[in-house]
Amino acid sequence: MKAEIIASGTELLLGQITDTNTPFIANQLATLGIDLFYASIVGDNFERFLGVLQQAFKRSDITIITGGLGPTKGDITREVIAGLMNEKMEIDAASKKHITEYFGRLGMEMPVNNLKQATLIPSATAILNPLGTAPGWWVEKNGKIIISLPGPPAEMQPMWLREVHPRLEKKAGSIIVSRTLKTWGLSEAKLDEMVGPFMGMPNPTLALYAKPDGIHMRITAKASNKETAYALIRERESTLQNMLKDNIWGVDDDTLEEIIARQLLNKGLTIAIAESFTSGFLAYSLANLPDSQRFFRGGLVTANNDIRASLGIIADSKTPKTDTQTASCMASMVIEKFYADIGIGLDGYIENKDGAVIGVAFVAVNVKGKKELNVSQTYPGRHALLARRSVMHALYSLRKTLTVL
Amino acid sequence: MKAEIIASGTELLLGQITDTNTPFIANQLATLGIDLFYASIVGDNFERFLGVLQQAFKRSDITIITGGLGPTKGDITREVIAGLMNEKMEIDAASKKHITEYFGRLGMEMPVNNLKQATLIPSATAILNPLGTAPGWWVEKNGKIIISLPGPPAEMQPMWLREVHPRLEKKAGSIIVSRTLKTWGLSEAKLDEMVGPFMGMPNPTLALYAKPDGIHMRITAKASNKETAYALIRERESTLQNMLKDNIWGVDDDTLEEIIARQLLNKGLTIAIAESFTSGFLAYSLANLPDSQRFFRGGLVTANNDIRASLGIIADSKTPKTDTQTASCMASMVIEKFYADIGIGLDGYIENKDGAVIGVAFVAVNVKGKKELNVSQTYPGRHALLARRSVMHALYSLRKTLTVL
Repeated sequence: MKAEIIASGTELLLGQITDTNTPFIANQLATLGIDLFYASIVGDNFERFLGVLQQAFKRSDITIITGGLGPTKGDITREVIAGLMNEKMEIDAASKKHITEYFGRLGMEMPVNNLKQATLIPSATAILNPLGTAPGWWVEKNGKIIISLPGPPAEMQPMWLREVHPRLEKKAGSIIVSRTLKTWGLSEAKLDEMVGPFMGMPNPTLALYAKPDGIHMRITAKASNKETAYALIRERESTLQNMLKDNIWGVDDDTLEEIIARQLLNKGLTIAIAESFTSGFLAYSLANLPDSQRFFRGGLVTANNDIRASLGIIADSKTPKTDTQTASCMASMVIEKFYADIGIGLDGYIENKDGAVIGVAFVAVNVKGKKELNVSQTYPGRHALLARRSVMHALYSLRKTLTVL
Repeated sequence: MKAEIIASGTELLLGQITDTNTPFIANQLATLGIDLFYASIVGDNFERFLGVLQQAFKRSDITIITGGLGPTKGDITREVIAGLMNEKMEIDAASKKHITEYFGRLGMEMPVNNLKQATLIPSATAILNPLGTAPGWWVEKNGKIIISLPGPPAEMQPMWLREVHPRLEKKAGSIIVSRTLKTWGLSEAKLDEMVGPFMGMPNPTLALYAKPDGIHMRITAKASNKETAYALIRERESTLQNMLKDNIWGVDDDTLEEIIARQLLNKGLTIAIAESFTSGFLAYSLANLPDSQRFFRGGLVTANNDIRASLGIIADSKTPKTDTQTASCMASMVIEKFYADIGIGLDGYIENKDGAVIGVAFVAVNVKGKKELNVSQTYPGRHALLARRSVMHALYSLRKTLTVL
């Protein structure tokens, strides 16, 4: 099956907003195994829009249109489809009820302009829009399909996932399911060496992606039904989990921050942060989580040697020091100052060595009255990259510590 | 003049990357007064790409292609243009020299595959690419233009701004110039009321945009040459500056953080931060700037009442307080603890009042041994929005204080 996407809206052609619907739908079509050969943008002009739609309807099996379903005169997607089909738009009672109720919940009367959002043509059925007034259209004629969805991604995406995706899945015959395992602490080359044998296999496939939060491994399985696809994925995932253990810190939409927050809340532990060149990014990544007041006690940000000396992190401001011991001092200091169960010290510096910029970061995760766990790590890279990686590394070390506490 | 954009690359049709080149170019064409009626995406398939280009060449005066200029077999933009023109690709000596030198600077020999990046057809001239190996093509034939640029935005955008934009400006006959004035502290409705009379005028036009860092006012002038357009803008800007004074904190690409850093460095002043519900975001916004070690002394993040009591911010942990006095205590405390010239205290809370979520933030900017400036501000909105606005408001208050120091 061949699909084509049309994003409509003059604002897209003026560069006022970026079309994020096309990449979303493109990605979804890829997981359905449906080929996408063309995508285009057209403005709110009847003749040009009709021309683009005619061409799509002729050369593709499925045409997906986003935008142009609003209540204004500039919203012409329904009119263009009706024009192509040579059919008349009529008020659909169910859609009218939905829109009237939508305004009712807002305590408003439905403006007359919105009535055109309740129309259908004989070849079309409505696609429910729980988050807005405009229902979509699912049009089928002569073995071809046109799917019309609203432009706002917050409305379009749930409609796609709940209504459109399941229907297309049935048409496509086979489905593709993916699962992402997120790793930290192994280089891409090392991981490539370890999981190499699985990367050549056809089903499920395995691919590596370098991301800010580590190397992601994506397992993708193809089968005629979900159950078989998931079984294929489960088996491969279990093999990889046994092989890589602690280096896999999460899956799919997991974030390391959320995993840590759950661990801290479950164990009733509190935490405090001391950091320097990361500018408060580590404290922010934990303090900004929901319910953080229940586990985050405080954060201290400073790279100033006078202040570091006065806090007892370094002996005196004339002889600055940056090593695992400094990081550990920082961690212990915030455990004391902020009455926390766990302290993290994150320190580091950037230097020019033989013409190359080398960043070094030191992370200490200390537990009050218990053992100390010190981890030191060296990364090359510029300031922003080093900071991001160091924060990620500190969070990873924290998760590991929390797992055994 | 009618333009059309073609973004090429199978990875775009798989939804693996989002095309940001089309919105960039669309926006640029709008400022040139060149109409954009169509934009499309096509994969790395010769027949389909050629079909899309043929259609564009027929119906539009200018076709701009991004992507497909790499050294691999999948990069076929040159071949497709040569195919449409029915011309032969030949090695261009200047381009070959540029690519060879590029690899030379990296201490590498040019791979043979890269040689195809040095080709031209008789209708084409090269568009220099200072940041990569692939030059673009400027093709003129039968009064029509095809412009081919590389896909990576970091290469495409400078080439557009340095080479393509000036040439199109000459063709377009009239140019459009914009300048953005960035405001804080006035609501959109209030600003709309104040500058209303200018918003109805045709040249220069004035438009308001609500952004995270305040309301932006965009002045846009159209003229046959740059000098006249800039003169029109200067006059309107001067009127607005006189009217709004301190509420305009910057223009165009200015960020408030960078303006503050310049002020602090010029005056040789240092700063320290105490904050609660903003999770360290205020400290981060200043500590993360270049050269911050010269003005940023330290930041403290905590919302915990035991710790606030032990620091003397509130009387005791049983009776938490959040008001301008608390914020001022926080500001004075960090001036002392971090030996800073200026301290900012940022405190606030979110509460449910009559069913509505109301956030209140208090900002104090204190100067060591000098006067106190306390600003309190109430914003409705959820946590993330309140935090962002409060940080912006603290930075705005700081800038104002620095201006008179």
